[in-house]
Amino acid sequence: MIVQKYKDMLSGKSVIRQLSEFATARGAEIGYDNVFDYSLGNPSVPTPREFTEEMIRLLETKDPMELHGYSPSLGITSVREAVAASLSKRFGVPYEGKHIFMTSGAAGAIAHAVRCVTQPGDEILTFAPFFPEYHPYIDLTGAVLKVVPAQVEDFQINFRAFEEMLTDKTMAVLINTPNNPSGIVYSPETIQKLADTLQRKSEEYGHDIFIISDEPYREIVFEGVVNPCVSAYYSNTIMCYSFSKSLSLPGERIGYVAVNPACREAETLVNMCGQISRGIGHNCPPSIIQLAVARVLNRTADLSVYETNMELIYRTLMELGFTVVKPGGTFYIFPKALEEDAKVFCQKALKYDLILVPSDSFGVPGHFRMAYCIDTEKVQRSLEALRRFVETEYPSFS
Amino acid sequence: MIVQKYKDMLSGKSVIRQLSEFATARGAEIGYDNVFDYSLGNPSVPTPREFTEEMIRLLETKDPMELHGYSPSLGITSVREAVAASLSKRFGVPYEGKHIFMTSGAAGAIAHAVRCVTQPGDEILTFAPFFPEYHPYIDLTGAVLKVVPAQVEDFQINFRAFEEMLTDKTMAVLINTPNNPSGIVYSPETIQKLADTLQRKSEEYGHDIFIISDEPYREIVFEGVVNPCVSAYYSNTIMCYSFSKSLSLPGERIGYVAVNPACREAETLVNMCGQISRGIGHNCPPSIIQLAVARVLNRTADLSVYETNMELIYRTLMELGFTVVKPGGTFYIFPKALEEDAKVFCQKALKYDLILVPSDSFGVPGHFRMAYCIDTEKVQRSLEALRRFVETEYPSFS
Repeated sequence: MIVQKYKDMLSGKSVIRQLSEFATARGAEIGYDNVFDYSLGNPSVPTPREFTEEMIRLLETKDPMELHGYSPSLGITSVREAVAASLSKRFGVPYEGKHIFMTSGAAGAIAHAVRCVTQPGDEILTFAPFFPEYHPYIDLTGAVLKVVPAQVEDFQINFRAFEEMLTDKTMAVLINTPNNPSGIVYSPETIQKLADTLQRKSEEYGHDIFIISDEPYREIVFEGVVNPCVSAYYSNTIMCYSFSKSLSLPGERIGYVAVNPACREAETLVNMCGQISRGIGHNCPPSIIQLAVARVLNRTADLSVYETNMELIYRTLMELGFTVVKPGGTFYIFPKALEEDAKVFCQKALKYDLILVPSDSFGVPGHFRMAYCIDTEKVQRSLEALRRFVETEYPSFS
Repeated sequence: MIVQKYKDMLSGKSVIRQLSEFATARGAEIGYDNVFDYSLGNPSVPTPREFTEEMIRLLETKDPMELHGYSPSLGITSVREAVAASLSKRFGVPYEGKHIFMTSGAAGAIAHAVRCVTQPGDEILTFAPFFPEYHPYIDLTGAVLKVVPAQVEDFQINFRAFEEMLTDKTMAVLINTPNNPSGIVYSPETIQKLADTLQRKSEEYGHDIFIISDEPYREIVFEGVVNPCVSAYYSNTIMCYSFSKSLSLPGERIGYVAVNPACREAETLVNMCGQISRGIGHNCPPSIIQLAVARVLNRTADLSVYETNMELIYRTLMELGFTVVKPGGTFYIFPKALEEDAKVFCQKALKYDLILVPSDSFGVPGHFRMAYCIDTEKVQRSLEALRRFVETEYPSFS
C-alpha cells in the first residue's frame, strides 16, 4: 500500500517554492529582469573554465570503459586522496584518503553522517536560524531534530539555551557555518566554546557527541572574516561538504564526508558510510564528475560578486534603519523585518516585485532572508524598489 | 555513538569481492590477461560515441550556469518527457513525463520504490536466484525480504512455492528479468501468471500488491527471445531502470523509476519519490548526465559481444556435460556445479585461473555464475582452462 507518511508530505508546500513560482509568473508579466528575486540560493557565477576543460579532456582522451566503469563504493581512490591532501594542507588536520567518502552533494553527506551516529529516537541539536531541509533530512531517519533558539544579536550560538537542551540522548550537533540563512560565520571563540561544551558533556554522559559540520559555504567568506575549520577544534567532527557553491555546480551534486582522523574509529565510520549507501540507494557520485572536481579542488568560481552584492545591500539596509547582522560569508543576509509578522512583511514586498523569504521556516520569527546570488546591476535596481517599499509601507519607520 | 548495525556489516566480506581481489593478486603474478575473471558484471564494450559527443557538446555550447544549475528534484522536465516518450513508443504503455522520476541508477530507483509501498515489517517477495544486494537494499528499510525457492529446471517462477509464501503482509514482489545471475528472461506466460496471481491476491487481501521490476538488463536480450514488458501486464508496476548496462555507464549512475500510468495514484507515487529523496539524501542525478542520456535513449552500446560469448560458453558447457539453462539475455550464465558444494567447486577452479562465483549468495545451492562481459578472445582461452579443470578434477564426470 502507498505509504501515508510520504504522501502527507506532499501537501506541505514550501514557502520558498511558492515565492519562486510567484517570481516566475510575475516575470512572465513584466519581464523576469524586473522581478527582484531573492528567493533561491542558486549560484550566479559560472564554474571555473578549468572544470569544463577537465571534463572535456576526460571525455576526449580517456578510455570510456575506464572512465565510465564501476568505481569503488567509497569513491575513486585518487580522488579521495586528492581531497584529503587539499584539506590537510589548508587546515592542518592530517586527513588521508581513508578518511574521505565521496557523496552526491552535502545532502548525501549528511544522510550518511546522521545514520553513522544516531539511531531512531536519538537527538540531534541544531541552532536557529537553520536550513529548513534539516527537518526532512533528520526526521525521516527516525532521529529527532531539536532546534536551539537563536541569539539574534549576532547569530552566534546561544550557549545558555544550548546547555539546557543537551541531554544524554544527544548524539550529535549539526552546525552550518558560514550559515544559511544568516550569512554569519561562527567565530573561533564560538567554535572553541562549542568544542569544550561537547567534550565536557561527552564525558558526563559517557558517550561521544559528534559535530556534523555542514560546510557548503566554506569558500564564500568575506574580507577580514576568519572562518575557523571546525574539525581543527574538535576530534569527533564529521565534515559534510558540497562543491555546489564553491564551483557553481549545484546540479552536478558532488561533495564528500571527511571524518576527522583523530575521531575514535575514524576509518570505521568511513567504511560504514559504504554500508549505509547500500540501504539508502546512494551510489557514489558519477566517476567523471569525481575525477573532474579532483582537478580543481583548490579553485573556486569567481565568488567576489557575492561580497560586492552584500556590501551594497547591507549599506542600504543600514541607511533605511533596518536591524541587521553583517554577513561574514555565503550569499545570504537575514535582516529583521519592519513588522512582527515576517510573512505579512514579505507579502507586502511583493507589490514592489521584491521576493523576500520570511524567516519562520528558518526557526526565527520576524526576519527575512535575501539570497543575493544575482547580478549586481539587478541588486542596484532592487535597492530602489526596497527604498520605495519601506518609504511607502512603513513611512513612520523611515 | 557509532551505530552497531552498520559496523557489524563490515565484517561480512562479499564472496564476489574476495574473488575479485584474488583475481587482481593473481593477475599481478601471471598477467591479468591470463586470469579468466568471470566474477564482475562490469560492461566490456564502450559507451556509444553519441553519448560522449553529446557530453562534449553540452560542455562546449551550453551556458554553464544553466547546464550545472539546480535541476528539479524529480528530474529535468525535458528528460522525463523524453524517457516517457521512448517507453510509450517501445512498449505501448502510455507513460508521460509525470510518471518518471530520474534516479542515480537502479539502486537509487529501488530505494525509492521500496519506500513508496512498504513500511517496516511489511514483506517483499523475490525469486531465487536473485541479486544478493537486494538484501541490504530491503533489509535496511525495515521491510522484510523473503526469497521464493528457485525452479531450477528453467529458472522461471516456482508458483507453488510463491503462493505458499504470499501473505497479507506482502506489499510488493521484486523481480529481475532478464535475470542476474541466471540470464533467464521470464516468458510472457510467466509474467501473465504472476500478474493474475497478484491481481487475485490483491483482491483477497484488500490491498494493492506492487511489482517492483528491476530491469537493468532489458536491452541485452538474445536472438529469438521474447522479453515481455512487465508493466504492460500489470498496472501496479514500478519499473526501476539503469543505463549502466545498455549504455556501458555503470560509473555514472543514471537511471529512473517509471510508474505505470494505470497504477492507482501513479503521479502521487512519483511525487512521493521526491519526498523520499529528502530523507535518504538522494539527489536527482547530475544534470549533465541526465541531459546526455536523454539524447541516446534509443541507442545502446554494441551489445552483440555478450551473445557471442554466451554461445561459446554454453556450447562448451553442454559438450562437457554440464546441466545449464540457456540464457535469454544479460551477460550471465548459471550452470550447475559438478559437485554439491559450489564453494568447493569454485575453489578448485581457481587452480586453473578460472574465477567463478558460487551460487549460495544468489539463493540457490550447487550452481555457479559466470559474468561473461570480457573479450571473446579471452573467453576462448578460458574454455580451454575449463576443459582442463573438468577433465582433471572430475575425470569420472567428463
